[in-house]
Amino acid sequence: MTTAGPAAPTSTARVHWRPLAPDRASVTAGLWADRIRANADAAIPAGLKQLEEAQNLHNLRVAAGEEEGDVIGPIFADSDVHKWLEAAAWEYGRSHDEDLLASILQITRTLAAAQAEDGYLDSVVQVRERERYRKLEWSHEHYCAGHLMQAAVALVRTSGRTELLDVVVKLADHLVATFGTEDGKYDFVDGHPVVEMGLVELYRETGTQAYLDLARYFVEARGRGLLATHGVEPTYFSDRVPVREQTTVEGHAVRAVYLAAGAADVAAETGDTALLEALGTQYAAMARGKQYVTGGLGARWEGEAFGDDFELPADRAYAETCAAIGGVQWAWRMLLATGEASYADQVERMLYNGFLSGVSLGGTEYFYVNPLQLRTGAHADENRSPAHGRRGWFSCACCPPNVMRTFASFTGYLATSTDTSVQLHQYVPGTVDDPRTGLGVEVATDYPWDGSIALTVTAAPDREIALSLRVPAWAEGATLDGRPVEAGAYATVTRTFAVGEVVRLELPMAPRWTAAHPRVDAVRGCRALERGPLVYALEQSDQPDGVVVDDIVVDPDAELGVEHRPDLLGGVRVITLREASGATLTAIPYHVWANRGPQAMRVWLPVA
Amino acid sequence: MTTAGPAAPTSTARVHWRPLAPDRASVTAGLWADRIRANADAAIPAGLKQLEEAQNLHNLRVAAGEEEGDVIGPIFADSDVHKWLEAAAWEYGRSHDEDLLASILQITRTLAAAQAEDGYLDSVVQVRERERYRKLEWSHEHYCAGHLMQAAVALVRTSGRTELLDVVVKLADHLVATFGTEDGKYDFVDGHPVVEMGLVELYRETGTQAYLDLARYFVEARGRGLLATHGVEPTYFSDRVPVREQTTVEGHAVRAVYLAAGAADVAAETGDTALLEALGTQYAAMARGKQYVTGGLGARWEGEAFGDDFELPADRAYAETCAAIGGVQWAWRMLLATGEASYADQVERMLYNGFLSGVSLGGTEYFYVNPLQLRTGAHADENRSPAHGRRGWFSCACCPPNVMRTFASFTGYLATSTDTSVQLHQYVPGTVDDPRTGLGVEVATDYPWDGSIALTVTAAPDREIALSLRVPAWAEGATLDGRPVEAGAYATVTRTFAVGEVVRLELPMAPRWTAAHPRVDAVRGCRALERGPLVYALEQSDQPDGVVVDDIVVDPDAELGVEHRPDLLGGVRVITLREASGATLTAIPYHVWANRGPQAMRVWLPVA
Repeated sequence: MTTAGPAAPTSTARVHWRPLAPDRASVTAGLWADRIRANADAAIPAGLKQLEEAQNLHNLRVAAGEEEGDVIGPIFADSDVHKWLEAAAWEYGRSHDEDLLASILQITRTLAAAQAEDGYLDSVVQVRERERYRKLEWSHEHYCAGHLMQAAVALVRTSGRTELLDVVVKLADHLVATFGTEDGKYDFVDGHPVVEMGLVELYRETGTQAYLDLARYFVEARGRGLLATHGVEPTYFSDRVPVREQTTVEGHAVRAVYLAAGAADVAAETGDTALLEALGTQYAAMARGKQYVTGGLGARWEGEAFGDDFELPADRAYAETCAAIGGVQWAWRMLLATGEASYADQVERMLYNGFLSGVSLGGTEYFYVNPLQLRTGAHADENRSPAHGRRGWFSCACCPPNVMRTFASFTGYLATSTDTSVQLHQYVPGTVDDPRTGLGVEVATDYPWDGSIALTVTAAPDREIALSLRVPAWAEGATLDGRPVEAGAYATVTRTFAVGEVVRLELPMAPRWTAAHPRVDAVRGCRALERGPLVYALEQSDQPDGVVVDDIVVDPDAELGVEHRPDLLGGVRVITLREASGATLTAIPYHVWANRGPQAMRVWLPVA
Repeated sequence: MTTAGPAAPTSTARVHWRPLAPDRASVTAGLWADRIRANADAAIPAGLKQLEEAQNLHNLRVAAGEEEGDVIGPIFADSDVHKWLEAAAWEYGRSHDEDLLASILQITRTLAAAQAEDGYLDSVVQVRERERYRKLEWSHEHYCAGHLMQAAVALVRTSGRTELLDVVVKLADHLVATFGTEDGKYDFVDGHPVVEMGLVELYRETGTQAYLDLARYFVEARGRGLLATHGVEPTYFSDRVPVREQTTVEGHAVRAVYLAAGAADVAAETGDTALLEALGTQYAAMARGKQYVTGGLGARWEGEAFGDDFELPADRAYAETCAAIGGVQWAWRMLLATGEASYADQVERMLYNGFLSGVSLGGTEYFYVNPLQLRTGAHADENRSPAHGRRGWFSCACCPPNVMRTFASFTGYLATSTDTSVQLHQYVPGTVDDPRTGLGVEVATDYPWDGSIALTVTAAPDREIALSLRVPAWAEGATLDGRPVEAGAYATVTRTFAVGEVVRLELPMAPRWTAAHPRVDAVRGCRALERGPLVYALEQSDQPDGVVVDDIVVDPDAELGVEHRPDLLGGVRVITLREASGATLTAIPYHVWANRGPQAMRVWLPVA
């Protein structure tokens, strides 16, 4: 049995709702079931092979004295292994595949052997760079440590195995002894956050206050100019202003959202409402002016960074897959802390669009960047270029194992509860069994293709429970058991439930045209097509002869059709729409684009 | 007396027209006179100080054994000195300032002392890297050599002094002995072109065929995959296809246009019409889908690269100042080779907009990148960010001395001739005295503010001369001596001219709205405002209270006004226009933006 999911506030944490362990929910059919299966059956095994081929595991073995040779690849190479370990650990909690556990434990033994006497562990630095923390703004040593902490916590939560936890406790103790403002310590932070989340989770698992204190120090250390370097400015590292004084997101997008997610963990565990409030302000600014309709985060290739407010080009959207994942992590923590439906809407938008677009239907080919437009005849000039099409791995391979750990822990993001209430945030066919209240439900739905969601109570305590169902902000006209409910909020039924009774949520699924804020210059005169939680896109191969996606102008007043195409792209609902010239166009869900090779595509459609 | 300008085809070169030496034309008043004066009086002296402060000169002195210490800065640090030397050499031809010549010759002595016995010269490699040509795709060793060749050629042409020429001949001989496909030679090219132009110019000055052959080899060596490296793809280096098979421009913009300009030199000197034709195809593709209305080149920050066709974001336009300069060099060479007016139009568009925007009115503060939009509240996150405002120098300081050499040789781009004809391409108040025909004219005009251009003949041979005046493509309705003439072509008067007679060209200067190609998604629903050769922009500080540039919507049907504002920004004509709400807006020439600090600005204006 899994004890907790990827973010598990302690009993004293200041949170509104508490998450369920991933194995308290199941996905039995549909889109997510297909993707989670591909992740388990194809992606995670392929990932292990890629880690062998790209020599990440070799690096660890060299550091461990198990193999000869040099270390190879980027300075953060270990982190790809660590993310894979986390993915495998969550997957073990789902499948109880003992071979997978054996692989995890074998790598764990290598990690333990590679670890220095004092707890330090980073194979590339140990073997190639030798000097520790020489250039921490770029060296990712804490970044690697943070990911390993997340992996170790996942493993102990899903399997009870503490071998990896022992390694990270030693590593975390080393960090506690080394970093901070006290005399004799090194007052500095890693250029790439994630250790903040890792340390708080390790605190949650071990109860060691020093880990939480160190996480808080790392959060508070930013904005003091520690990371000022030549060429790249503090903005890049989220270091221009202190986290609690920041009012927006800026700089490297993955760094920014990982930091914010870690800060949210710190705020929850320390009861720091001022910090939480600052994070809410930042999140709102991001959602207002720095996020794509796909949920994608980070407009700029240069510096993989957030752009200025409303700088959201469709063609050069960077929208890194990892940024969407970090965005989900941040939004989830904000949801736990505040109980605000908008954060669950955010999780939905990012998961169904900017995250899912980052991986092929088969699970083993990835996009690093997720643009909202690709032009005819685009030439790739970069390893990560979408003009290449999806790729099995990258020279900087952060995204693939990040995708894997997200699928493997997916069920941890579906529901929350308190002692007297249960909240459903995402709708997938399957089950939710809440241990706090004793309420169990079976969810029957064809969501996101259909808006009917039927919950059948499978277990119920003999007391009143408040069951809350998220009504997405886009779902104007939704009903709960036939009664109109407010969109962008939770619809709640409070009663003593009985096994067998059914609660029905109906979300209207008519396709809709979405306009951007008028300051988004890049998509002026355009509309995007959405249906339910899905953003749609036009891909060249679905259009009639003679229609060139680059030149399309659509008629937004013409009727939109919805068609079930079980044959297409794993089974999707397409939307048919009208070109201004009269031709009928076919839109597919954005998240399945580029599964038939790279080709012209666009989300934002010029209107007549 | 100056013998020739910055590109001087030999008598056997296959060219349509031949340039005049820069001192055969003068600029006596107006915009260019002001800028050239600022360049001479402020920028070139300040540049020398910057080269001291940034240690570029120190590097050379270390290599020469004149100073102790390490070399500092990027691997191409010498090239900034070389470009400054070229600027100073052209400026010496203009001013005959003997102190300036003394500075040039002092640096030349250091260069000679630093030069290796066998001719090799690159201070950073000699002192810091030690191993030559170890990673030529990134090391810029030929790039530095090419710029030094251009400087040496400039010096000998303006002063007759051969000290620097001696250095570069030795350097070029070393390159000839080292590079090529012959046995024992190194078959490789520099990742950053410019040596091609340098070698052809050196061939032109010395008559040494081997330099032309080496330039041709460097042009032909591209597209063979020599530069394929990890991470960056051959596209970046203009190395995806051979130059003569390429049909567009792609990759790093400065690299691409420098290569093309060098290839045009090679084509001219070798009579290679197929190569010239390929370059014409590439230029047309660039002008059609990869150039901003400002003439700016290179849409992408990432890789400082051309984007895909029609990928031309206003806000994130990179449009490096150096790329506009390289574009002028390429267009000028195409003009010499073909006599097509469109290339002179191109020179005009780039000089008056994308080039001039790169330097402050005072001449000593620069933009590296030249966006067409800056939003309110933009945060700089990069040394080069326009949100910083203009800067006196950059850690990568290619642009400032590039600007200096362009101003200092500006008069070399005004006119051409043959034995029987003279062509005026750009209109500035001053004089043109053609030595081939003996025709001299004085040009009286307030261009670009006014469209009346009066040429008074000051010297005339006793024979028929064809005097051609460019009528810009935007100048529909132009007249020559009262008769309508075709826009986008040369208007020619062929007769035996008499001293004192006057030829009058009238170019209509009504402000005009310009629409982009419909595939330029970034500016859909917008228009740009132009007048004569100038692109206009709205800057926040010129607008009435309550009008926010980010939110402006203009009425394109409302009357446009033109107002002379001698007080404003060195004296400009502003255009007044109407906001859709009725407010009167004021547009300034784009090229003077950010002379009052960085602020919100936009060229492309949403229309109601």
